[in-house]
Formats: sequence, C-alpha cells, structure tokens
Amino acid sequence: MILTIPRFTTRSPPNAMPPETLVVGQSGGPTPVINSSLAGVLAGARGQFPRVLGLRHGIEGALIDRTVDLSHTSDSDLAALRRTPAAALGSCRHKLTPEGYERVLGTFERHNVRWFCYTGGNDSMDTCARLEQLAQERGYPLSVYGVPKTIDNDLVGTDHCPGYGSAARYWAIGAQEATRDLDAMQTYDRVLILECAGRNAGWLTASTAILRKDDRDAPHVLLLPEVPFEQSDFLRRVETALSRTGYCVVATAETIRDGEGKFVAQSVGGVDRFGHAIVTAVGETLAQLIERELRVKARANKPGTLQRSSMAYASSIDADEASSAGNAAAGRLAAGDSGKMVTFVRRESELYSCDLGAVSLREVANSERKLPPSFLGDGGADVTEAFRAYVMPLIGPAPEPFYRLA
Amino acid sequence: MILTIPRFTTRSPPNAMPPETLVVGQSGGPTPVINSSLAGVLAGARGQFPRVLGLRHGIEGALIDRTVDLSHTSDSDLAALRRTPAAALGSCRHKLTPEGYERVLGTFERHNVRWFCYTGGNDSMDTCARLEQLAQERGYPLSVYGVPKTIDNDLVGTDHCPGYGSAARYWAIGAQEATRDLDAMQTYDRVLILECAGRNAGWLTASTAILRKDDRDAPHVLLLPEVPFEQSDFLRRVETALSRTGYCVVATAETIRDGEGKFVAQSVGGVDRFGHAIVTAVGETLAQLIERELRVKARANKPGTLQRSSMAYASSIDADEASSAGNAAAGRLAAGDSGKMVTFVRRESELYSCDLGAVSLREVANSERKLPPSFLGDGGADVTEAFRAYVMPLIGPAPEPFYRLA
Repeated sequence: MILTIPRFTTRSPPNAMPPETLVVGQSGGPTPVINSSLAGVLAGARGQFPRVLGLRHGIEGALIDRTVDLSHTSDSDLAALRRTPAAALGSCRHKLTPEGYERVLGTFERHNVRWFCYTGGNDSMDTCARLEQLAQERGYPLSVYGVPKTIDNDLVGTDHCPGYGSAARYWAIGAQEATRDLDAMQTYDRVLILECAGRNAGWLTASTAILRKDDRDAPHVLLLPEVPFEQSDFLRRVETALSRTGYCVVATAETIRDGEGKFVAQSVGGVDRFGHAIVTAVGETLAQLIERELRVKARANKPGTLQRSSMAYASSIDADEASSAGNAAAGRLAAGDSGKMVTFVRRESELYSCDLGAVSLREVANSERKLPPSFLGDGGADVTEAFRAYVMPLIGPAPEPFYRLA
Repeated sequence: MILTIPRFTTRSPPNAMPPETLVVGQSGGPTPVINSSLAGVLAGARGQFPRVLGLRHGIEGALIDRTVDLSHTSDSDLAALRRTPAAALGSCRHKLTPEGYERVLGTFERHNVRWFCYTGGNDSMDTCARLEQLAQERGYPLSVYGVPKTIDNDLVGTDHCPGYGSAARYWAIGAQEATRDLDAMQTYDRVLILECAGRNAGWLTASTAILRKDDRDAPHVLLLPEVPFEQSDFLRRVETALSRTGYCVVATAETIRDGEGKFVAQSVGGVDRFGHAIVTAVGETLAQLIERELRVKARANKPGTLQRSSMAYASSIDADEASSAGNAAAGRLAAGDSGKMVTFVRRESELYSCDLGAVSLREVANSERKLPPSFLGDGGADVTEAFRAYVMPLIGPAPEPFYRLA
C-alpha cells in the first residue's frame, strides 16, 4: 500500500472564530460601472473592517460558499477594476427559496460576516431586505446596505441609478452615429430599428433622443414600453418620417406590448426566474413588418449585451458616481447603519450636482419606476425637454458635433 | 423592395465653361474613417485643382446631377469631417447600366470634370474602371483614381483597406467586453453569439480573436465564411467550450453557408443590386439552434451598422492611413496618374509601417480577397498567430488589460 501525500496541505478552518467580516457582492445584469462601485466599496472598507470577502456570482456564491478574500486589494487593482466591464466577482439572477435564505445565513455565520454590501437592482434589494429580516429573526447581528445598479434606471427612491448614464451615453451617441450611416445610405436602406434594453421602463430607449437637433436626427419614431404599440399608428409615423426626411430611425424598447398587453416581439423563452418575460428580436419583427407593409428596405441593430459592456461609451460622471455610492455604502455600514440603499438626490441648481441619500430597502424592493408623464411628449410618441435636461448631465461630456454639409 | 428616387433639386450649369474640376465621391457601406479619406482628398486637392465638387450619394449624384462645391473647405471643416461617422457626402450601392455610364459622363462633361476620385470597395472600383474606359472611347480627357474603403478588408492588391482597422478594433475589444459580461452571467446565460459583417471574407469575424489570452476569452467557436458550416461539428464545439469554460462565445460571419452553399441565416431579401445575397439574423438562428439542441440559454448580439459607425472604437492609425490614402489619390491625379487605386504595402520590419502603392483598377474590380490558408488554424476553426500579428498594428494602441480576480 502506498501512502499518498497530497501535494497541497489542506488548511482546516481554525477553531478560533474568523475575524468580523464585510462581504460584498454584485448582482443582476452588469453595467460599465458596477466594478467602479466595487472599487468604491473596497476603497471605503480600508481600515474599517477586519476582513473583506467577495461573493462569486452574488448570492449564489453564498449558497455554495464560494468567496474570495478582498482584504488586501492594491490601488492598481482598484484602477484596473474601474476600467473593466461586466462584474469582476461574477453576477447572477437568482431568486432564493426560503431554504436558500437559511443556507446563505449559514454561510455568513461560518465566515463571521457582520456586514453585507450588495450592488444590484430591485430584485437584489428584495434579497437584501429579506436576508436582513431573517437575520433579525434569528438574532444574528447582520447589517445590510444596497448600492443601486441598473442600466434600466427603474429603481424608485433615487434620482437615477449608476449604470444608466453609461448606457444612455451609448445610445445617445450611438443613435446619432447609426443615423448618419442611414442618412448616407438612404438611397439603399430606408428604415433602421434600434433595439434597446430597459425592461418595463423606457429610460434607455428614450435616451436615443437627447442629442437630436433637427428632423434629420434620430429617433424619428420612439416606441416606449410605457405606451401600447398600435400597428397602424406606427406604420403611419414611419411613413411620415420617410416622406419628410427620406429615411427613418425607429428606437424601440425590446419589451413593447400591444394594447392587450401582448409582447410585440416573438416570445421565445417564457419567463425568467423572477417571472419577467424574456423577449427577443422585436427589431427584426418590426423590420419585417415594415418591409411587408411599406415595401421599403428595413434593418435592425440589436447590440444586446454590448450596450451594457462597452467601456468606450462609459460616462465618466457615471463611473465617479458609482464609485462614490460604493464608498458611501461601506462607510455607512462601518458607522452602524443598515437596511438601506444609497440614493442620488439631485440639487436644485443651475449646474448638475447630487447629494448621496438613502432609502429603505423595502421601498426599493420589487418596485419599478417608469418614465413619468412629465417626460413623455406628443402623446407618448416622444420625450420632453424636461427629460433631455434630466439625462444630459448623466452621460458626461457632450460629444463635439459631427460635420454637416452646408 | 423598391428603388426610391430621392427628392433632389437639379442645378443647371452656367453657360460659360466651368473651371476644370476634380469630383470626389463616397461609395458602398460607410466606415468610421471614410470621411478621413475625404478630408485627405480635400487637403491634397488644395491649390492643385481649379475647382472641387462633391457627388451626393456617390455615382447616383452624378446620374441626377446633384453635387456640392467643396473648393473652399476650411481646416475646421476637415477636423470635423475626421470625427464624423458614415459618409458626409452620402453614399450609395448602385450598379450603373450602360445608359447610366453615358449619363454620368454627360454630367461630368457639363461640369468640366477632368479628375474623378472615388472612395469605395470592389464594386466601386469596377464603376471607376468602366467610366474611365468609356471616357477614353469617347475621347474625353478624364483621369480616375480609387481610394480603398471597406470594413470587410476584401480588396485585392493591398495589404489592408482603410475602415477595416477600426471595425476590427470594434470587434477585438467588443468581443472581450461581451465575454466579460457572459463570464459574469454564466450561471444564467451560457452562450453568446456575436454576428459580424464581412460579406464573403472572414477578416472581420476573425478579428474577434486577436485579444484572446486564454480559454476564458472569446471566441470559443469561430464561424468563418471561408469554412462550410457543419451543424453537428458546431454543436460539439459549443459543448466542449461549455464543459471547459462554463460558457461559450461564438463569433460568426453573417454570411456563413452550409456544405451545399446555402446560407445558414434565413434569407430575407434575395439579392441586392450587385447580386450579393442579403442575409440576416444568423445569430438568432444559431441561438435558437443551441437552445433547442443543447438545452442551454443562448442569446445573440447583432450590432449591425453600429460596428461600422462607432467612432469611440475607431482606430487612430486607421484614420491616419485613410487620410493619407485620400491625400495620395489627389496628389497622383494632380501629377497626371490615372486608372489605379491607392494601396498599402507593408514593410518587412519589426515595427509596423506601410508605404503607399498603386494597383490597376481592373485588378481590384469585382475580385474578393478571402482569408489565406496561412491565417486559418485548426482546420479553419481558428486563426493563427500570423493573423494576429497581421491585424494587431491596424487596430491602433492595444487597450490596457482588464482586471481579473487572482
């Protein structure tokens, strides 16, 4: 018999209790600045917490006890994080079962986790709120703080969400770039559909309109999820744009529905784990509708995950704000606060500036903020100047104007 | 599909013979740097030609006599042109009939056009060659010079084409950004399809691979138009990537065909005016195939015209080269040369540098350059280090590496 000696010595957990620990996680669809929030948390945590652990793939990492020690990240790590797209710790879309919450709390107890900082959207804030409640019921001392994150900008209680400014910049500039392309090709291609994310809220789709200067600029037709899709009205608006401008750019949310609440896109996958419908290819659907009904050439751009991962279009102000939100969450946890999400409170002033506030997790959880009536113009067919004034500061420096023939 | 006649106003020429004129035009699908080529032509034309006219929408502008006077563009005009996407003069995809060539030459004669500088791909170079021949047959003194342009990089006789470096940068960086997103979301989304342009050549699709460092980086499966698509082999490669990496990024050309030459994408519009097939939605097609056969979640990114209009991903070296090519064409026309297209001749040296050369228009016209065998690795399933070394200098400064957890 051969005695095999492992090449690695297994470190059995020390009998002594691990140091009190802050655990951080990232959740939901990534944004260009969610890693800036993580960098902010890590910078804010320095010297405040005995140990910092990161969850791999958000709450799923807590379920299967998969963590990484982040207690000793360097300044160059944080700088690299800030230029890195997606979620460096891994993200997830996972709805915990009651047993799942117990298991997560068990993992937290084993690691002596006393503080939990989670960056995500409304589903993630719901997870945070429930976890805090369970800990209270069990008499386990756990403080919880949320950092807002979503390109959809649909969280309640905050002026806006980190991630939105960058995705809005992507579409504000991208829509005009694609329009110049269509303008140049108008004797061949006539209609272009831009398919935008945003779930049930039109914030991102509407951002395509904010750099529009005149009739030649996109979008000529705006399809928001807040407004029921009506086919004959849509085709009429496309025809009007074609006769006025020679071409037509349609910006559509991927989730538009008809008057009966049915998705315009072919539904492919039913619903996701949170019950949200998965829809796809509304751009192709509309392009085919236009070719069939109006007999003009139409095509669709669907950048998909590129709209939330393109660092070249990230908004510098968005990255800075994402970082401050993470930093504030760490500071507030260190100061003993809990049960809230960081918010942005816009000052009433000529120049854009925001204070950081807070909102109860329960208020954010599972609520959606849609475009308010004051931002919807032309019976829901366009956005207002008030909307433009709201978004412009969030996208960072405005690009220099393109050349136009005299 | 119908041919739309734009609402252009025709200006009748003055009675007196106009000054001898250089006419410039832009043709084919735009690129981020075709306006840099125009700026180069206009800078090179200064003091060389009595008058400079621009054709609106390429050769279609000559057909219906729609031109714009560019004799007096300022330095700030040229600077604005260089940061403007698409084709500022308007572009076209138009195959001239024999009567069309006569009509174009008629327009040129009325405007006393002696020099014609056209920026475009192989179809456009064919147009140039035929126009020059007709002028010779008629005894009309017309010099013609082509400036290469295409994101497809499929022109013969040149090391590469302006426009390709920028689109390759878009995909080289974009593929890794989208991969980080999928890596983060791998417990939810498993497969991502990136749908790339490039017509019958795989240059652009292959550029997704050049920043790949290890198994985690994209693409895990590369589908090039040079290699027939084989469904079971494709699904096996996706499965291998899934088991090795946990997720799989597929980069596909929109024009891949099966062993019998049939397009994998649903064919929607038959053929365009040059007889090239119009295909669409190969990404959605493959995503649906994967969900059906492998029972894992798959999605597709199809940025469409954004891949050729995104200025934030433009390659600085590509813009500079596009400008020099335009400048050289103007200079050579002024020096009496004709019947050629500017080419790039790469020097055999450690550091990248190119000389400007020339090739006969006839040699370029209607020929396609596909990926050569030396650039295809792993039986056509991957690209070689030689390909990477070829492309890297064209995309401009390499981006700083992303953060990766230790």
